[in-house]
Amino acid sequence: MKELSDIGLIGLAVMGENLVLNMESKGFQVSVYNRTTQRVDDFVNGRAKGKNIRGTHSLQELVASLERPRKIMMMVKAGKPVDDLIESLVPLLDQGDILIDGGNTHYPDTNRRTAYVESKGLLYIGTGVSGGEEGALLGPSIMPGGSQKAWPVVKPVFQSIAAKVEDGTPCCDWVGENGAGHFVKMVHNGIEYGDMQLINEAYHIMKDVLGMSADEMHLVFKEWNEGPLDSYLIEITRDILAFKDEDGQPLVDKILDTAGQKGTGKWTAVSALEHGVPLTLIGEAVFSRCLSAIKEERVAASKIIKGPKPEFKGDKKQFIKDIESALFASKIVSYAQGYALMAAAAKEYGWNLNYGGIALMWRGGCIIRSAFLGRIKEAFDRNKDLSNLLLDPFFKDVVEKAQQGWRNVIATAVINGIPAPAISSALNYFDGYRSERLPANLLQAQRDFFGAHTYERVDKPRGEFFHTNWTGRGGTTASTTYNV
Amino acid sequence: MKELSDIGLIGLAVMGENLVLNMESKGFQVSVYNRTTQRVDDFVNGRAKGKNIRGTHSLQELVASLERPRKIMMMVKAGKPVDDLIESLVPLLDQGDILIDGGNTHYPDTNRRTAYVESKGLLYIGTGVSGGEEGALLGPSIMPGGSQKAWPVVKPVFQSIAAKVEDGTPCCDWVGENGAGHFVKMVHNGIEYGDMQLINEAYHIMKDVLGMSADEMHLVFKEWNEGPLDSYLIEITRDILAFKDEDGQPLVDKILDTAGQKGTGKWTAVSALEHGVPLTLIGEAVFSRCLSAIKEERVAASKIIKGPKPEFKGDKKQFIKDIESALFASKIVSYAQGYALMAAAAKEYGWNLNYGGIALMWRGGCIIRSAFLGRIKEAFDRNKDLSNLLLDPFFKDVVEKAQQGWRNVIATAVINGIPAPAISSALNYFDGYRSERLPANLLQAQRDFFGAHTYERVDKPRGEFFHTNWTGRGGTTASTTYNV
Repeated sequence: MKELSDIGLIGLAVMGENLVLNMESKGFQVSVYNRTTQRVDDFVNGRAKGKNIRGTHSLQELVASLERPRKIMMMVKAGKPVDDLIESLVPLLDQGDILIDGGNTHYPDTNRRTAYVESKGLLYIGTGVSGGEEGALLGPSIMPGGSQKAWPVVKPVFQSIAAKVEDGTPCCDWVGENGAGHFVKMVHNGIEYGDMQLINEAYHIMKDVLGMSADEMHLVFKEWNEGPLDSYLIEITRDILAFKDEDGQPLVDKILDTAGQKGTGKWTAVSALEHGVPLTLIGEAVFSRCLSAIKEERVAASKIIKGPKPEFKGDKKQFIKDIESALFASKIVSYAQGYALMAAAAKEYGWNLNYGGIALMWRGGCIIRSAFLGRIKEAFDRNKDLSNLLLDPFFKDVVEKAQQGWRNVIATAVINGIPAPAISSALNYFDGYRSERLPANLLQAQRDFFGAHTYERVDKPRGEFFHTNWTGRGGTTASTTYNV
Repeated sequence: MKELSDIGLIGLAVMGENLVLNMESKGFQVSVYNRTTQRVDDFVNGRAKGKNIRGTHSLQELVASLERPRKIMMMVKAGKPVDDLIESLVPLLDQGDILIDGGNTHYPDTNRRTAYVESKGLLYIGTGVSGGEEGALLGPSIMPGGSQKAWPVVKPVFQSIAAKVEDGTPCCDWVGENGAGHFVKMVHNGIEYGDMQLINEAYHIMKDVLGMSADEMHLVFKEWNEGPLDSYLIEITRDILAFKDEDGQPLVDKILDTAGQKGTGKWTAVSALEHGVPLTLIGEAVFSRCLSAIKEERVAASKIIKGPKPEFKGDKKQFIKDIESALFASKIVSYAQGYALMAAAAKEYGWNLNYGGIALMWRGGCIIRSAFLGRIKEAFDRNKDLSNLLLDPFFKDVVEKAQQGWRNVIATAVINGIPAPAISSALNYFDGYRSERLPANLLQAQRDFFGAHTYERVDKPRGEFFHTNWTGRGGTTASTTYNV
């Protein structure tokens, strides 16, 4: 073992341990520390035994064991524990040392902490790490942002441990200033919510409209995973559907239909509302989890409220193809929405985001990894200023071809009483986005009628505002003045 | 004029002026103040001339002109101006005096200010006031919350100036502690967003699927306003559609389709996400305004992306009835969602909300006033613990009868490429809510597969959590532990 380690890591829960083992396997010597120091000993004498990993029993000892500029990665619970740890570490460090938060942090905290840590003469990185426990061990997707000066220093470590795409490109690149890394990770998680919800809806329609068994659906997902939908989530769905319980029955049928959430999907939806960017699909995905959670109320309601009895007449095989189309088209919309949110945030916070690079970071290692992300990378290679994925020739073409099946799936679900909120919201966005004229003219008339909010006209330049005295009563009213 | 006025009001913009005139017309003497004192003089010598209204030129003078306990209503811009005003007023007031914020305040601010003002020995009310300028003058809906002890003191004024329903009951009653009044006002505004969006979608479908003119739609809205949809928003839509521009053409057709928003619909959607209550319809309504705002991008997209050419084959008259059904059923869902949010907030903040009373407050005076709200009042009279409006016998019956038409409208819109996001999200919620089994079992399997998040089983008691080693690789993984 060298006298000084290449990097330190604090927080030996699963993700932390796995990242350490991953770094070590790539040739880096790692010093580790955990508040409950028993954990350090357990790790060093267990999974880390015989490896280039040094256990330390205090922050002082950890800091002293690191090569300069020190790089310390914090893998602790998001929130106050990170602030507390920063407070403890700052006095122990020297100018140019780098603190790295690899936890599931809300980006405004990273905006704040970057400024704070930089004010102490240190550098800060807040990085998204995705891929779950297995990803952390074998190659996660890594999305770092914060102090740009820190990037060249941590780059060799991060890019070594990250997942790689086919040609060897690492799924890790610099995202942008302050909270940009955690923002992009948040959008990633929101998209993950959306992707999962879409698959759930496809499953629901096959199960309850077509009456398919888990085994039959397994075969469908197997086939889908060999086509344009090829992705980690389709792959594990394929495997889940084939998995048998001890009694030989499909395990998926025994699982209770109440979804949990850790809140990052919610953050994405809230951020979308705050930035005024329609992220309808992710919104529906989050709300669907909420609805699934009130199981008892749903069971009671199912006994009271009647709906149609599902009945499918038509070509089942073709309909399964339609579902594939619906899934793919909806997925394109979801990513289009997510990218629009990133663009809005980048504008607000002054980040210079590399959109193609982000697709590449997600291309491997993380939960949403897919062949599809390669297509997004290509779209931004064609046009780095692409304002919406739906306008890229490839995606436009795919969606136009998919749309008949997509529409058919929703109409069938609607008539049969099977909810498909995410697939529907995607189509509604698509139809709204390609509408030269939406009905908001009536909305503006309504707002002007009751609140004198004024409106613009199609036959006048933008920025000229008009008010009409709709009722013919009273004087001239405008939103902020009232003269009789 | 009496030596001391009954109430004081600060902030002479339109809403403030109109509230003053309303109070005076009900026999109350009002002292008024405005930071720009020219406005006080203009008002006293203008609209307030010859009336029981006293102009004052400083906060001291205002305070000195009021009967005790003093009641001072602040009608200033929400946010910091309210805090500043409170700071200025507190030293001038005596124990038991009452500060009232009648502005469009976000409820967390009212939670905070109630505690602060009470800590100074004063009382505080944060009240929603809805109905726009005309409502303020002729009878608004008033939703007060805050210091319960202040209610008996302000009740005579508030209930006098409030709108009245047919039997004379005022559209104003005590809502609950601290921010409850502003919370309920926020939900009101969210519902207003939803109601408006639903009408917009109905209009869009009639216009672009059925090819109807503004005049033809005017007649439809006229008829709807005489049925169960009878409401202020349907009424003004009827009038808007009949309104002609100077050239004799319908004015609505000349208005630009880019909607504005003041943010309260957004607050409702964010609050829903935070409380984990699926408010899908209001979410879609807010996002629809965002989508309408990117007009240039839509115009460009409309030239690039192809969709179906709308074509209606069928019974037009019946389809218009179906749209009415879709509108009514969606509206019920929207209110069901809004009420669920209020119930969740009441639980969290310890408010003892009177749900029937809230329906009554909205029954008149405000933008969402409607016959329908009387039905909601009745539903809570039947069962004050009603967990969801959809379970009330009346509404259940209405929705069951409406659902065939509702489904037909969405299927038709989907096939014809006309967006109907709010109507669709309402049906998806309805179908989800009445589902004994949603596909979240697959979602839980996915989460357990990649993140070891564990799941519950249908054949085991709630609260028992299971994890499966889906891949057969590695050791036993659970979300927080990892042992090999």
